[in-house]
Formats: sequence, C-alpha cells, structure tokens
Amino acid sequence: MDPSPFEFQITATDGAARAGVFHTPHGAVETPAFMPVGTQATVKALDPEDLTGARAQMILANAYHLHLRPGDDVIAGLGGLHRFMGWGGPILTDSGGFQVFSLEGLRRVDEDGVDFQSHIDGSWRRFTPELVMQVERNLGADVIMQFDHVIPGKSDVAMARDASERSLRWLARCKTEFERLSADVSRFPVLRQALFPIIQGGIHTDLRREAARAIRSMSEWPGFGIGGLSVGESKPDMYAMLEVVATELPAARPRYLMGVGFPEDLIEAMRRGIDLFDCVAPTRMGRNGTAFTSEGRINVKRADLRNDSRPLDTDCDCSACRRFSRAYLRHLYIADEMLGLRLLSLHNIHFLIALTRLARLAIHDGTFDAWARERLERLQIRSSSPSLFTS
Amino acid sequence: MDPSPFEFQITATDGAARAGVFHTPHGAVETPAFMPVGTQATVKALDPEDLTGARAQMILANAYHLHLRPGDDVIAGLGGLHRFMGWGGPILTDSGGFQVFSLEGLRRVDEDGVDFQSHIDGSWRRFTPELVMQVERNLGADVIMQFDHVIPGKSDVAMARDASERSLRWLARCKTEFERLSADVSRFPVLRQALFPIIQGGIHTDLRREAARAIRSMSEWPGFGIGGLSVGESKPDMYAMLEVVATELPAARPRYLMGVGFPEDLIEAMRRGIDLFDCVAPTRMGRNGTAFTSEGRINVKRADLRNDSRPLDTDCDCSACRRFSRAYLRHLYIADEMLGLRLLSLHNIHFLIALTRLARLAIHDGTFDAWARERLERLQIRSSSPSLFTS
Repeated sequence: MDPSPFEFQITATDGAARAGVFHTPHGAVETPAFMPVGTQATVKALDPEDLTGARAQMILANAYHLHLRPGDDVIAGLGGLHRFMGWGGPILTDSGGFQVFSLEGLRRVDEDGVDFQSHIDGSWRRFTPELVMQVERNLGADVIMQFDHVIPGKSDVAMARDASERSLRWLARCKTEFERLSADVSRFPVLRQALFPIIQGGIHTDLRREAARAIRSMSEWPGFGIGGLSVGESKPDMYAMLEVVATELPAARPRYLMGVGFPEDLIEAMRRGIDLFDCVAPTRMGRNGTAFTSEGRINVKRADLRNDSRPLDTDCDCSACRRFSRAYLRHLYIADEMLGLRLLSLHNIHFLIALTRLARLAIHDGTFDAWARERLERLQIRSSSPSLFTS
Repeated sequence: MDPSPFEFQITATDGAARAGVFHTPHGAVETPAFMPVGTQATVKALDPEDLTGARAQMILANAYHLHLRPGDDVIAGLGGLHRFMGWGGPILTDSGGFQVFSLEGLRRVDEDGVDFQSHIDGSWRRFTPELVMQVERNLGADVIMQFDHVIPGKSDVAMARDASERSLRWLARCKTEFERLSADVSRFPVLRQALFPIIQGGIHTDLRREAARAIRSMSEWPGFGIGGLSVGESKPDMYAMLEVVATELPAARPRYLMGVGFPEDLIEAMRRGIDLFDCVAPTRMGRNGTAFTSEGRINVKRADLRNDSRPLDTDCDCSACRRFSRAYLRHLYIADEMLGLRLLSLHNIHFLIALTRLARLAIHDGTFDAWARERLERLQIRSSSPSLFTS
C-alpha cells in the first residue's frame, strides 16, 4: 500500500500554538484552518466560488443530513460529494452523532446504536457505527468522523463517562467497519479516506484524559477530533479541557476542535494547540444580520448605519467589504433581499479564515502571543461582555 | 452642450428585426438586449458579479421601491445608485407607475398625481410627475422613465383613452421638470440622463397610434418605452400592438418593451423591431424552482431529476450549467438552500441574455427568421400550450 495521503507536517510552533500542513487526496490544508460548514452539501447562502474567494481550504458536510436527503446512495451514484457539490478541495464529513443526539425525545440509544426520528418526515431510522461508516464511504469525503455519543456540555460525570465509554466502543466498531470497507476496492477503487476518532468526556479532566489514552492505544490515528465542547459549558471549562487533551495527543497529528467558531474562541484554542475548526456560527449569524469585525460584532439592522458609507470592517478585504457599504448591506437586510444574507455570510467566513491565516503567520514569526493579545483586545471594543483573555 | 451621450446606431436589420448599439454614460448596450430587474437595487438572489458573468449589459431598478426604502435621498447621499449597488454599467429606472397603479384600492388618482398607501408601512404618499423626476434624478440612473398611468391589459377603450391621455399630459410635465433639473448642475454636476416616454393605449390600435404620434410631436426623444403590454391581454393582441407602434416610431431610436421576458415573447417582439426588454420572470421563476431551457421549462422539483447528472440545459454555458447537475439543483431546492434559488435565477437570466445575443448574431447574418422559427419550435418540446409561432 502506498504511503498515507494524510501526512501532517508541523512547520512552526510558538508556545503551544502550532502551524502545519495537513495533506489530503484533494489537496493540502495549511493550519490552523477554519472549515466552513456545508451541512446539506452547500455552505448556506454561499457558492463554492465564494469559498474559494474567501480562501477556504477544507469544508464540512454532514452524514446525518445527507443520508436522509438526498441519500448517500444518490450522491455515490453521482460520483461522490466533491463532484455533487462542485467543491474540488478537501472535505470532512461529520458522522451525525451531534445531530442524532440533539433529537431529544425523538431518539432511543442502546449499545448497538440509536433509533431516531427523521427531522424531515418523522420516519424512524437507525444509526449504528457500521451504518455511519457505510454512509461516510458513500459520500466519499477525505476525512470522516467516527459515530459518537454526544451529551450536553454540563452533564454530570456519570452520564459523561457512560457516553464517553460508549463512544470508545463505537470507535472500535467504526474502525473495524472502516477497514473492511477500505479493503474492498471494487466499489470505490480510488477512494482514500482518513477516519478521525472523537475525544469526549464532557468537562471532566479525568474522563478527557482517559478517553485520549484509550483512543491512542487503539491505533495510529491520522488525526483527532475533540467533541462535546462549545455545547453549553463555560469558556474556562472549555479552555481547561483543551489543555488536558493537548498534553495527551501526539504532536505530529492534527487536532480538530469540533463546532467552535467565534473569533475569541479560535484565538484561545489556537493558543492551546488546536489546528482545525468548524462552526455554523459565521453563516447562521450572517443570516441573522450580524457581522464579525476586528472590533467586535455589528448588527446591520442598526438605524445608525442607514447612511454609513464605510465597509463592514475597514480591515477586511472580502468581496463584500471591497464593494459595498454598511448602508447598502443594511438596506438589503431590511428589504429581505437574499444578496444581503450571502454577503454577510461570506464576510463572516472570510473573517474567520483570515484570522486563522494571520495566526499562522504570527506562529511562523514567533509573535503569536502578542498578536493574540492585540486581537483579543480589539475584539472587545464593541463588546459589553467581560474579557475572554484568560492567560 | 456636448453631444448626447445616448446615441443609438443600427448596425443591421433583418425584416423588421434590428441590431444596434445604444450608448449611455456608463457604457454601450448591444441590442437586442434583455435587462435584468433589480427592483430594490439588487437583482433578486444575484450578485453584480453574477450579472457580469451572465453578460448582462444594462439593468433596471425601481423608483417607487427605492423612494420608499431606503429613500432616494439616502442613495443620492451615498453617491447614487451605481455606487450604492456596485453596478458600474448602465441602469434604467422605472418610474413606479406600474407599482402605484397595482395598488388597487390603496390609491386615488387625480389629474395632478396619485395618492397611494406604501406597501411597506401603509403610510399615505403622493407621486406627481414632478416628484418622480426628482426621485429618478436622485437615483441617477442613465435612462429614466416617465411617470405614467398604467391600466389592466383588457381595459375598455374609454378607460384606456383616459389613462393614455393622462400619461401624455404627465409626460409633458415630466419633460418640463426633467429639463429644469438637468439645467441645475449644482447638485449633480456630471449626471447625464435620458428621459424615455411610455406609449400606452391598451390593446386599441387607434389609441396606440395616437399616443405614439402625440409623443413624437412633443420632442426628439432618445428612446421610447412601450408600456401596458404583457398585463393580461392575449398574445396576438400584444403582437398586433407592437406592429402598430413600430410603424409609428423613428427607426433611429431604441424601443423598449416593458415587462416582457418569456423566451417566446422575446423572439416574437424582436421579430417586430423591439430592442430592449426587462422582466422579473427569470428571477421569480427561478425562486419558484423553474428553469428556462432551449426545449421549454423544467421544474427542478420533479422526482425524475433525483439522479439526473445532466446540466439544466445542455446548450447552456452559464455558471450553474457548467458546474452542477439537475440532481444537485433539485436537492438544493428541496432542502430549501439559498444556493439553489441563486443558481436557477442566474441560469434564467443567462438564458434570456444569451437568447437576445444569438438573435443579434442572426440579424447580422440575415438569418433571423430561420433562427426564430427553429428556436420557437424547440421551445415547444416540453410545452403543452399551443404554438406561439404566429407568423
């Protein structure tokens, strides 16, 4: 077998922060990197060309949503997810654990898997680790996530242990099925995928450490997901868990913090050695009329923007900020015009990607800490919340 | 005063069909041309870059909508409509006559003007020919339309005569105010605009002829609008009116058929000497999931497109057809994803623009009639309606 196409090279470190290059069959990803989320095989409101323009490198899609609609079999028949959605770069699929376990009251968990009701038509469906691996193989993303048991952020230790240990047992089954599918080259002869485990354990240091060690003992994984954070726990708890996990993971593999995507959180997590991020926040906030800026958030509905000829963020060179005023974006939003939602989503995605790119430069320059302090201070200018700068 | 920046050169004719070049301060328009409609200073679901990609030359906006929101004064203060909406090419503003007279029961007409209730907040407003000229000057489009009295397509001759004659009296007032505003160079020193009259008269040959003659006797207009068609009358009635009007208008001025935008109608109107078109149909239909194709319309919701790997129209080189399958567009539409609405709108705009461009080539080649017959026959392939080919 030829060498793994999922090599990760660290190109610089600065404190715990790391810069690197993660290789995939669809291209290399310079890290740290923010990955826009295309849940239903499209990043909401955006075109693949917008993602290229924003210098997105790798994007997400969701196995749960695409299994239900249009069907992973349909996508496989059309040549896989890359071709289906017109994105030639790397793709990562989340397994759907988060989605299935969000269906409170509409799901039943047992050791073998989960029964749940489709959010689309209410039909009962069943996910097992094996089925999810088959779905993710049909979709054909470069990186696929294990099926895991996700719990609320403030769960007690008993519940967190139960879910974390079940996630470990499911990981072993994912691995077996993944290897079985990978060995069968008859259906997808050129498909090479990387399976990432997910470290759970809530906000419990011991559980996080145990999970990381148990996972490492199972295999030489090409990368690691860190799940169950940014789901209701406090910021200090989240940062503490990142510090615990970072000490347990091998330096030479990428670390992906799942579902985290606010500027302050990205900076604090990069400081603690995280390499990859995803979040629906930039596009969801964009559709709600809120824009990230270097000096905190702006809501474009604000009356005082009516005649404001400035761009959203004078520091930003995105396609929206290069061309349009706050006054125009406000008009589009208030007039219920789709272009407004697209431009705000595009700006927010661009903003987070630029933030990770600048962090990477600072890590290479050995100036990450000063850069992080300055960025965090500026982010507070328009914010009324207490400082998130914790170190 | 320097020569008019609104010259129109006929470059070829074929039967009654004409190819030409219409010059404006923001660039030249090769005719026949379809103009996408950006009612609220944005072509719904599209980016200005999409319009450039679809080779749109000139676009529309609406004085009624922009007066109400965000306010023509706001747009003037921000440098005018071109800068506001990020479109550097020619723009035409409709006066709002159509919108005001669509507010059945919410408006009162008198000889001086129209009182109407805003569709946004119900407040009572008043439009007069003079105010509309001021609004259109604030917006700063290249071509501005007179304020006219628009009636339903099947109105009887008495109603049609009343509205047409009022439109003529309002045209005289528009002209006086337009000349007064144009002479005052203190506020907009470099703004050069063309005022187009609108020929009304319903489906009554005599009224259309009288209106055209009365309008011509008033001034040397830089171009002519033909209004009150495609508003409920039959297709033969519409085509008959075009033939009447065409014989009354000077050859050397562009003729703009307002609100017409179905492929069959464009072909039949170009055959009768029309140079410019606009219509919300391509974007409205796109948002409803319907695509124009060379062989008639397709609704992307259709179940049989679920696994269809072909583009919407194999003859089309638009940005949607070059990249995406019918199956993907169907998925986006059913999953309620904005990208689907944008791609369908973009395709439909591209389709109509390409149709006028191909017509122009055929006129230059002297093959317009054969081209028109072949296109009309192909458009019937998926259509169950009777042939529209009437000559």
